[in-house]
Order: sequence, then C-alpha cells, then structure tokens
Amino acid sequence: MFRRHHFVAATALSASLLALSALADQGKPTPTTQELLAKSSAAEWRQPDPNNLLVMQLASGRVLIELAPDFTPLHAANIRTLIKQHYFDGLSIVRVQDNFVTQWDDPAGDDGGDPKKIRSLGHAKNTLPPEFTRPIDPKLPWTALPDGDVYAPEVGFSEGFPVARDPASGQEWLTHCYGMVGVGRDNGPETGNGSALYAVIGQAPRRLDRNLAVIGRVLEGMPLLSGLPRGAGPMGFYAKPEQRITIQSVRLAGDLPPAQRPSVEVLRTDSATFADLIETKRNRRDAFYAVPAGKVDLCGVDVPERAAKTAVPVKP
Amino acid sequence: MFRRHHFVAATALSASLLALSALADQGKPTPTTQELLAKSSAAEWRQPDPNNLLVMQLASGRVLIELAPDFTPLHAANIRTLIKQHYFDGLSIVRVQDNFVTQWDDPAGDDGGDPKKIRSLGHAKNTLPPEFTRPIDPKLPWTALPDGDVYAPEVGFSEGFPVARDPASGQEWLTHCYGMVGVGRDNGPETGNGSALYAVIGQAPRRLDRNLAVIGRVLEGMPLLSGLPRGAGPMGFYAKPEQRITIQSVRLAGDLPPAQRPSVEVLRTDSATFADLIETKRNRRDAFYAVPAGKVDLCGVDVPERAAKTAVPVKP
Repeated sequence: MFRRHHFVAATALSASLLALSALADQGKPTPTTQELLAKSSAAEWRQPDPNNLLVMQLASGRVLIELAPDFTPLHAANIRTLIKQHYFDGLSIVRVQDNFVTQWDDPAGDDGGDPKKIRSLGHAKNTLPPEFTRPIDPKLPWTALPDGDVYAPEVGFSEGFPVARDPASGQEWLTHCYGMVGVGRDNGPETGNGSALYAVIGQAPRRLDRNLAVIGRVLEGMPLLSGLPRGAGPMGFYAKPEQRITIQSVRLAGDLPPAQRPSVEVLRTDSATFADLIETKRNRRDAFYAVPAGKVDLCGVDVPERAAKTAVPVKP
Repeated sequence: MFRRHHFVAATALSASLLALSALADQGKPTPTTQELLAKSSAAEWRQPDPNNLLVMQLASGRVLIELAPDFTPLHAANIRTLIKQHYFDGLSIVRVQDNFVTQWDDPAGDDGGDPKKIRSLGHAKNTLPPEFTRPIDPKLPWTALPDGDVYAPEVGFSEGFPVARDPASGQEWLTHCYGMVGVGRDNGPETGNGSALYAVIGQAPRRLDRNLAVIGRVLEGMPLLSGLPRGAGPMGFYAKPEQRITIQSVRLAGDLPPAQRPSVEVLRTDSATFADLIETKRNRRDAFYAVPAGKVDLCGVDVPERAAKTAVPVKP
C-alpha cells in the first residue's frame, strides 16, 4: 500500500544526533516538533505584550501579528496610533502577488484610486525615519544559526524574530522571511508610515532587507493571507474592487476586553527547546530521511506559537 | 500622495552595474525584467519538448509542468505511462499545507481512504529506483550562481531547473525551490512512482533535497496551486472529501491535437539574458532601492517563461 502519510511526516521536525541537550540517544529517531514542544517547560514560552499584538479580523478568521518595537519602534508607535483610531477598519487586502506578498491598505491611495477618498491618518505621522536597520544591541537576546546565509554575515533569532547582522557596519535588521510583515512605501525611504502593510507569502525576498521597514511577524492566521486568489492586475493587485477582501477591524490585543483578548504564547528563541528544534531541522534521522540536510537556513525555521491557557494581563 | 505602486515596483527585476554584457551604463537605473526580456533574442528561448510538458486541467484553469528527464528519467517515463492511461483524470488535489506543498494523488490511497477503491497503476511501475541524485554530467549546460548556498557546495541552473552539486561526491540534484514538483513516497526510498505529486508553495524546503525525487517545475499556473485554501486536516490534508479539487485531466502536450497544444517557451538558463537577469537580482539600483542585496540565492531566481508564437511540433 502506498501510505502517503509517510511523505507527509517529512514536514514535521525531528531531533538530531548533534543536539547539545537531551537528544543524545543515537539509537532513536529524532523526535517531532510536537514531541519536543510537549517536553518544553512553561518558562520557555512567553506571551506577547498585548500592546504589541495586533488582531486583524477578516470574515474568514483572525490574523495575529506581533510587533517588534525593539527593531522598528517609530513604526510600531505609528501603527498603534493608526489602530487606536480604527484606521484599518473597512480597508482591504488589495494585492496578492504569487510567491511574494499579500498587501493591505487604503485602496483610495493606490494606483487608480480616488485621491479625494483617501482616509486621513489622523494623529499618525505621514512620514517616518526609515528604521530599515538598527545598531546591534548586545543587550537583546541572540541565538545564532551556525550554517551561514547567502545575504548577511550573521543570522539568528532575537526576541522571536529572524534577524541578520553585519558586525562590520554594526547594524542588524529583521529579515523578509515567510510571514514577516513590512511597511509599503513610495520611493523616498521616509515615505512609509504603516498605513500600507504586507506579509511575505513565498520564498523569502531577502533583497528587500535593509530597504523596507519590517515591523513584525504573523503569529496566527497566515493561511488567511497566503491562501487567497492571486490578483490578476499588475503586480498582483486585484483587478476589480469587488475582489478585495475587507478588513473588518484591526485592534491591539491590549485594547480588547479581557474576554476577547487572544491567548497566545510564543516559544522563546533563547530557550533550550528552540535550540533543540534548530538541531532537528539541521539533522533529521528517521525512517523516512535518507540524508539529513546537515544545515538549516534562517527562513527555514519557524518559531512555534500555541494557544496559551490565559490571556496575559495588560500592564497599567 | 502615497504612491504604493513604487513599493510594488520592487518586485520586478532590474539590471546591475556589474553585469557582464550590455548593462554597463552606470548612470542608468537597472532595467526591469520586462525590459531585459524585451531585448532578448529568439535564440535565447526554447520550447519544451511536448513529451516533457504536462498539461493539468483544473476547473480554475491550466497548470503546465515541465519534466526534467535528464535528472529523473525513470520517474519521467513512469509519469508519462500514467498520463497516457489517463490515470490522473478525476483524481484530486488532496492536500495544501501552508508554507510547504500542494499535493495531488488518488485519495483512496491516502490515510483514511478506501484501499479497495485504489486506482490501478496499469502499465506503470509501482516502485522505482530513487533518483534522488544523479552523477554530475559535464555535458549538461551549467550556469553557476556566485553567492554560495546554505545547503550545498555549488548551486546553479541546468536546462531551466535549479540544481545543487557536490563535487566531492560527484552528485547533482534538482532542488526544492518554489514551483518545483516532487514525488510523494512511503518510507522506503523506492516507493515513489509518480502517482502522488506535490509542488512547493512556500519557503524552499531544502531539507527534502536528496530525499525525494524531483521531477520538474511548474511553468504556468502556480497561483492555481498556491492560492488554494489550506487543508485543516493533519499536515494540510483537506479534512472533508468535498474540499478536494478535482483534476479534470492530465495530458502530455505531445498527445494533444495541435490546436490544443500549449504554446510556451522558457528562457534558456545558459543564455546571456539569463545571466543579466541574475545580475539584476543581485544588484539592483534604482529610485526605490537604498541598498542592493549584492547576492542572490538559488530559489530567489525564477526562470522566465512566456507564450510562444506557435506550439512546437512533436518529434516523430
């Protein structure tokens, strides 16, 4: 019988002969991600600050995005200002370009839109300093990946996000991996303000790194952004307005009543379990795999998240 | 005004200061892919052999897949045998796993299927030698990429496909880039036969390289495979049979009447225009880009295809 679920099993993560921690039993197949996470401790998980957690409601469900204010603080603040004004409510997903990005914004501001109908940014700023990179902060946690990167001298994870670093310039930046969220802009580097956002839905377009402000990561709901019909217009814009997907609302989790606040936690990227997880990606040995890769690339590692038992309280 | 089409323009390719051919005018912005291709010569394009061109018809449109028989000849032959028997007609897309693969096969053979209803493979073989790698063939064209790779000692393009090489072992293999098509299998390396196929729809799962037979690439119609609702079942299988997408038919282009034969041509990956295209990916300078990447990764280069003026004749 052709049991295709075995191919399928190739998608789960397993552990490594090389893992540094408790995975040293060379006789056993590498554990799956599920098995690894089941053994993790509660302290290895963190709940995002509700003021960094965006809840985007679509008819199809909920998308959760975590802001990364240590990397793009001015953009995070401007996006919070927009959200508190309910700026995004009733705007749309306007563009889905295959193997690239899903973008949402005010269609009136796009090519072919009616400039007279452009929604006011209210108290939010219209332009911002670029924040495409930031000085390396040795105080931020850093989990290096050991296998190199085509684009940057060093790559790893910080505070749950994929990051590239250049020690020569002293700069670091969030990278355009699958599920990362960036800020659309005009030609001028300062013209992004967070009112037009995109999520990466294909092979990581790393050429965008250091050219756009990356503001966070989709924690939940990627299929609601990636599994959409591609736009037939230029660069994946929906050709007809009725094809756009309406954004019912975007709220900060911290502004929601406690009962509506999402309960989500993210595996700490400076935890032992995350280190084990990286090793299972690098070297997988089980009944299916003939040859372990021996390496893993930055965008090949997804940071696990899961439902938390209770929503985190909002700090006063 | 917030002209978001300028962000959008970041998706097109442009040329480089470093390009080896006619792109040496340092004052001008790098041309777009469209501009580069417009200047290409007819001889830089090839029409796939109709006996290597699969036409998969869905209700939503047509998917074209080019086989790579120089890399996986036994699998190509078995798939042709299946197609000539109309094996795939009425089977289904059964699985769409976010950031991973879309898979189509006989649902009766999957977990939870009815083994009594499994469709016969007819004259096709049930098992095949793995063909996960092949000896490096110096007679095949080879266009090396200059920026390295996390997973393999050498990467580049051969006959229109992304390829990795290991000179130490003397082996080369097709890589799991976006749009590449592979053969699902059971645990045994010989258990793949081409009756279950998958296309990569997310970040390249390069850990699968050398562990599965890669048989070709989607030339047209990727959005019909990638823009589907993700399956809610384990590993992205559709939980309910009615969610599956029916395959109306799969034919070899060479078996179609000339009037129905797709007219498509692919840019030769050993052409000067393709070399220029790689350079535009590596180093892009225009009004939008502040910092050219300086590098490109293997799966970051899509091989262009376009409609041909006439369908290629079938060789007798």
